Amino acid sequence: MTYCVATISRAGLVFCSDSRTNAGVDQVSTYGKMHKFGIPGKRQFVVLSAGNLATTQGVVSQMGKDIKAAAPVSLDTVASMSEAADYLGELNCAQQEKTGGGHTYEATFIIGGQILGESPHLYLVYAQGNHITTSKDTPYLQIGESKYGKPILDRILDHDTSLETAALCALVSMDSTMRSNLSVGPPIELQLYQADSFVLDRYERFDSESPYLRALKKQWSAGLLDAFSKLPPLSSASPRPAPKKR
Amino acid sequence: MTYCVATISRAGLVFCSDSRTNAGVDQVSTYGKMHKFGIPGKRQFVVLSAGNLATTQGVVSQMGKDIKAAAPVSLDTVASMSEAADYLGELNCAQQEKTGGGHTYEATFIIGGQILGESPHLYLVYAQGNHITTSKDTPYLQIGESKYGKPILDRILDHDTSLETAALCALVSMDSTMRSNLSVGPPIELQLYQADSFVLDRYERFDSESPYLRALKKQWSAGLLDAFSKLPPLSSASPRPAPKKR
Repeated sequence: MTYCVATISRAGLVFCSDSRTNAGVDQVSTYGKMHKFGIPGKRQFVVLSAGNLATTQGVVSQMGKDIKAAAPVSLDTVASMSEAADYLGELNCAQQEKTGGGHTYEATFIIGGQILGESPHLYLVYAQGNHITTSKDTPYLQIGESKYGKPILDRILDHDTSLETAALCALVSMDSTMRSNLSVGPPIELQLYQADSFVLDRYERFDSESPYLRALKKQWSAGLLDAFSKLPPLSSASPRPAPKKR
Repeated sequence: MTYCVATISRAGLVFCSDSRTNAGVDQVSTYGKMHKFGIPGKRQFVVLSAGNLATTQGVVSQMGKDIKAAAPVSLDTVASMSEAADYLGELNCAQQEKTGGGHTYEATFIIGGQILGESPHLYLVYAQGNHITTSKDTPYLQIGESKYGKPILDRILDHDTSLETAALCALVSMDSTMRSNLSVGPPIELQLYQADSFVLDRYERFDSESPYLRALKKQWSAGLLDAFSKLPPLSSASPRPAPKKR
């Protein structure tokens, strides 16, 4: 399984992914699911992948080849982020067709970034090649095991969230997912993209021994317990009627 | 969709369920999913249901009929909670077979309670009629839309959790689920069962206008934001190396 999340706000984009892949519980490996492409100052792309590992590797590899070969359509040539998502969708379908298709070979992707002249965008590319983007009310996209980590995203993120806060939120979302699903695991990759910077310079990689990730988990756990301890007691839900005054 | 959760600890059992059923977004109704049976002082059962409404209503109705008709096997006669789960599993399969079976007619149940001479128990009964119970490490069971509300259960519950705390935890778990899945909704039913009491006397029903539920949601939301604001800043993850002393 996999968990990847990407957020968008006025400040820019945040990408976060785990690194565990498995084909059954006895075939667990570590593979990064975050891939980057771009031309500094002109265009930057981050791609997150989930699903069949052969398909995702094939697609990511083809994106690199197309750039290298100066193909007519590549991440170096697409005129908009929406075209980039179309291109990724076509590669995704083509790669699945090589295997004869079928559910087993499906993959989904998130592609985000910015092309000079446009604002930053995020797209989720389905196995069928079609895609959706974010809205002001839904400023994030998830692929893989998305449910455990969704509540915190719904509570924290909006269009005005700072990059730092969005990154913390993505890490907390990842932490909740890792706690509840064994097949999502470190190292955790985190990429921040500041709007209009056209460089991908703020990257972190946290392995399971990371002192920061440990501190974050510990503090979040303590904070949740504290928040929980302050909830109104159930006895206040239906207080016994006060004794009548004589 | 549905969300039901039941918890077990030394102190007793807690049951919590939503009341929304839907067959498509234009056919949404309100049905309680919590059903109670028992003989005060001798045995008490709470049943939570998820899945096809015709199946769950058929099963619950049959449990009542079997008691009324003094059938050889009913919740009045089973010798253990595990037998009660077997019995519920048989009714579940029989009800599904009436419709010819198939995924559409499936239902799952949680049954919990206590029979004099035994400690309290919880069972989850699958559509196939088989069942699982809790363990010291997994002191809860969920049916329906279970993922959104799971992380808080994993963080809070253990064998020593008080009934009051377990009930709050179930409500918070329900709140997270309702936030993320529109097809789970109020009224919320909550039943506490104190171990060895053999009465079901502590019951709450919260509709969407409930002042307590609103206060709980508001306080939890504020507490989460507060906990989030206290997380170690990302900048502490990879501090710039300190300038060398001369």
